[in-house]
Amino acid sequence: MFATGFGMLAPAMTEERKGDKITTRAEDYPQWYQDVVREADLAEPAKVVKGCMVIKPYGYAIWEKIQRELDTRFKATGHQNAYFPLLVPQSFITREAQHVEGFAPELAVVTHAGGEKLEEPYVIRPTSETIIGHFFSKWVSSWRDLPLLVNQWANVMRWELRTRLFLRTTEFLWQEGHTAHATHDEALAEVRRMLDIYGAFAESVMAMPVIRGIKTASERFAGAVETFCIEAFMQDGKALQAGTSHDLGQNFGKAFDVKFQSESGALEYVWQTSWGVSTRLVGGLVMTHSDDAGLVLPPRLAPIHAVIIPIYKNPDERTRVLEACERLAKALGDIDLAQDGARQRDWLTVQIDDRDLRPGAKFYHWERRGVPIRIELGPKDLEKGQVCLKMRVDTPAATGKQFVPEAELVATARARLLAYQDALLLAAAERMNTRTVQLDNWDEFLATFAGENSTFAWCHWDGSAATEAAIKAETKATIRCVPLPGQGPAPAPGRCIKSGAPSPQRVLIAKAY
Amino acid sequence: MFATGFGMLAPAMTEERKGDKITTRAEDYPQWYQDVVREADLAEPAKVVKGCMVIKPYGYAIWEKIQRELDTRFKATGHQNAYFPLLVPQSFITREAQHVEGFAPELAVVTHAGGEKLEEPYVIRPTSETIIGHFFSKWVSSWRDLPLLVNQWANVMRWELRTRLFLRTTEFLWQEGHTAHATHDEALAEVRRMLDIYGAFAESVMAMPVIRGIKTASERFAGAVETFCIEAFMQDGKALQAGTSHDLGQNFGKAFDVKFQSESGALEYVWQTSWGVSTRLVGGLVMTHSDDAGLVLPPRLAPIHAVIIPIYKNPDERTRVLEACERLAKALGDIDLAQDGARQRDWLTVQIDDRDLRPGAKFYHWERRGVPIRIELGPKDLEKGQVCLKMRVDTPAATGKQFVPEAELVATARARLLAYQDALLLAAAERMNTRTVQLDNWDEFLATFAGENSTFAWCHWDGSAATEAAIKAETKATIRCVPLPGQGPAPAPGRCIKSGAPSPQRVLIAKAY
Repeated sequence: MFATGFGMLAPAMTEERKGDKITTRAEDYPQWYQDVVREADLAEPAKVVKGCMVIKPYGYAIWEKIQRELDTRFKATGHQNAYFPLLVPQSFITREAQHVEGFAPELAVVTHAGGEKLEEPYVIRPTSETIIGHFFSKWVSSWRDLPLLVNQWANVMRWELRTRLFLRTTEFLWQEGHTAHATHDEALAEVRRMLDIYGAFAESVMAMPVIRGIKTASERFAGAVETFCIEAFMQDGKALQAGTSHDLGQNFGKAFDVKFQSESGALEYVWQTSWGVSTRLVGGLVMTHSDDAGLVLPPRLAPIHAVIIPIYKNPDERTRVLEACERLAKALGDIDLAQDGARQRDWLTVQIDDRDLRPGAKFYHWERRGVPIRIELGPKDLEKGQVCLKMRVDTPAATGKQFVPEAELVATARARLLAYQDALLLAAAERMNTRTVQLDNWDEFLATFAGENSTFAWCHWDGSAATEAAIKAETKATIRCVPLPGQGPAPAPGRCIKSGAPSPQRVLIAKAY
Repeated sequence: MFATGFGMLAPAMTEERKGDKITTRAEDYPQWYQDVVREADLAEPAKVVKGCMVIKPYGYAIWEKIQRELDTRFKATGHQNAYFPLLVPQSFITREAQHVEGFAPELAVVTHAGGEKLEEPYVIRPTSETIIGHFFSKWVSSWRDLPLLVNQWANVMRWELRTRLFLRTTEFLWQEGHTAHATHDEALAEVRRMLDIYGAFAESVMAMPVIRGIKTASERFAGAVETFCIEAFMQDGKALQAGTSHDLGQNFGKAFDVKFQSESGALEYVWQTSWGVSTRLVGGLVMTHSDDAGLVLPPRLAPIHAVIIPIYKNPDERTRVLEACERLAKALGDIDLAQDGARQRDWLTVQIDDRDLRPGAKFYHWERRGVPIRIELGPKDLEKGQVCLKMRVDTPAATGKQFVPEAELVATARARLLAYQDALLLAAAERMNTRTVQLDNWDEFLATFAGENSTFAWCHWDGSAATEAAIKAETKATIRCVPLPGQGPAPAPGRCIKSGAPSPQRVLIAKAY
């Protein structure tokens, strides 16, 4: 499929505005992140609306691809989308004690509407457990109504003090799944099912390896009995909580009176779950793969898969070369990247860049946007019946410029893209694994997390909130999760790295976004 | 594709709750509408949030199909999606004089956030011309940056006094296109292009015929130079404004200082457009096709295309019949309804209803949900190698129950669905045409619009706002639009139905939602 101009929205913001260089990661990692987001034209701070951002077309196209992939998986597991009100009566938030404690400080409040002061203020949803709990109580009356499996794609608002594009903004876009079940076992199975979907999505689509685990009590969602999470490794060694799946127990069922008559006739509260991922994933994507030249994107989430750059010196060459470019673009646009058995097609998107700019400026432009394949085509290539192909990032399978016979381009491009997807995951996993450590000594721990330093550290912990708080206070590192089976080192008892008290297994510690 | 339980969300809300009958249209049209929406499980009033609704899974699935169809058309015409902040600084709204006059009475205002009173309040976007104008001013500097073609799928809020599910709610979902151009001509071409897309979508996808026209000054979007619209005919003779496309001139360009250097080097304000449709379309869909038995859906927007109802008397029959149902469902689910040349597939969605209910209760259930095809299958049909097929609404091509050889089911189902789509459009057009009148006499006009009566009336109008206001005051009927060429009777001069003054052509008058 032909792209419709992604990333060419505002030329004034690219080649013609000099000095927009990308700081290296080594020099200043946070600045590098900002530079990559800006130069790839993904988003910009709204400024006039505190802590908000504008998601620009190229960034939004990535989010749309994330949505499509996840939505397909949610529906395949029996969930249905619905839409609940943006505004929540303020009193709803207070009904669940932990919930109000967690969210009250971050609420935006509507006090006036239609020219009048409201009798009861509304808050803009920071999350929708309360308002959805209210409707569940109207919809559920019998065990036959269960399970109730609902998801919502929506905007939410949390008034944060320190914000950062995609990673933490006052308004963000997300999906929030909300389900109700007849038994705790069924709810727990749902929590694990959705965590599995998040984990598989992160790895197979985002090419971002994650550690699956359980949050400690202090990091739990406000109102949950247990929070499961996936944690991703960013290139500065920090962790990104990339998705969470909550066992809500009967907490919201009790707060909103969601009761049902069981098969045996007893009146019981439902067991609920909620789970969500947000536009923060785009930030995680940037920080997992990008390099000092700018954005790097896995093909499954790239708005443009291939850019074709015509090379010519005069009008006659231009005509011939462009004609060939159109032919290549058409052939490439008919490549279906969908996996075997997929019910929908996933067309390769290609763009010809025929702007009046030097080829070098165009290379630079698309490199910073992370387009996986660059194709150059000039008169000499035409004569030889070949094209010059280069992947955005070298991989063991394909390094630098390669000349491919035109007749083989379609097969080569498809194979290269699929291999590139795998190569990015492998490279990210290798970075994470190489930099993951096991620490057993507090001085070593302090050195590891000195200053802004961070990495993934598997350490013994005595299980106490006091120790957890002491570690955080002294180093800013936090317990990211207690790993699920198969994640991290095999469980074995040891001594807490901080207190020396007994510990049943290692937990994952890192600084976090 | 197998459906995942749409419309089976809450059995307690259907068969088991007696007395939820559908009022006839003749008896009480507004009540009929509410009953159809409730019985099809499309949405319900939020109640705890003033004027808001919950869009339930079956209703949201229709909205998703509307979104997919429109989004494809927007992208094919070069538009890109983006996302702008929900909150707008209150001062932004006041920058364009007409705009603030139109929207100020309907604003919801955020005065507190993060536990503190805000220095400047924010309003929840009622529409986004102002905040998007602000960003356009940052993105546009040269003619090379134009046209800028952006669309946003979002929620908006307008504090309305009288609300009605889908048709008018304080919060609603919509898309808003915003574009900037170098010349007025280009902007006008965009305005017309998008009106054409809306019109073609309404007719070919929603099977809802529309009149394309231009709003009078009093019905214009607050801040627009000209508003183009599509108006649809509801079964009670009222009009529904189903989509609008605005020529904003340079109004917002001047208010937000969106300037560019033209090719000749002059500094000029951009010419802008905006255009939108909302979840109100779902209400229009309901009121265009549904009947006294409940919802009727055109196949292109139906979440479920076919339901299979097994008929059996004992466990042995059940086993054999269900096995055959699964076989039929699989075959039907492999039907691609996409039009020739479509880049994506549009799978037929089928559901087997094996709930422990009488077949009659199931017929009733799916009829009220507007599923186009009902298939019954019992032991006798199995013996004869046939199935019993019935369309939700009789059409000239297919009336009542018909027996189809199983071997022909796939071809028959596909052909029937495509014919049904066309038949619904034809039937709706016939209703509109039959009930559209030309009036030239004020007494006749008064009789036509007496009480709650309405229809589509082509009348001469003298072009003055005073006459327009007098007509509205006396009859509640309004000028829906001045028709575009080819819409309504051929233009010919005449005398205003109210004032008798000269008129160049007839305009469309009706009461409206």
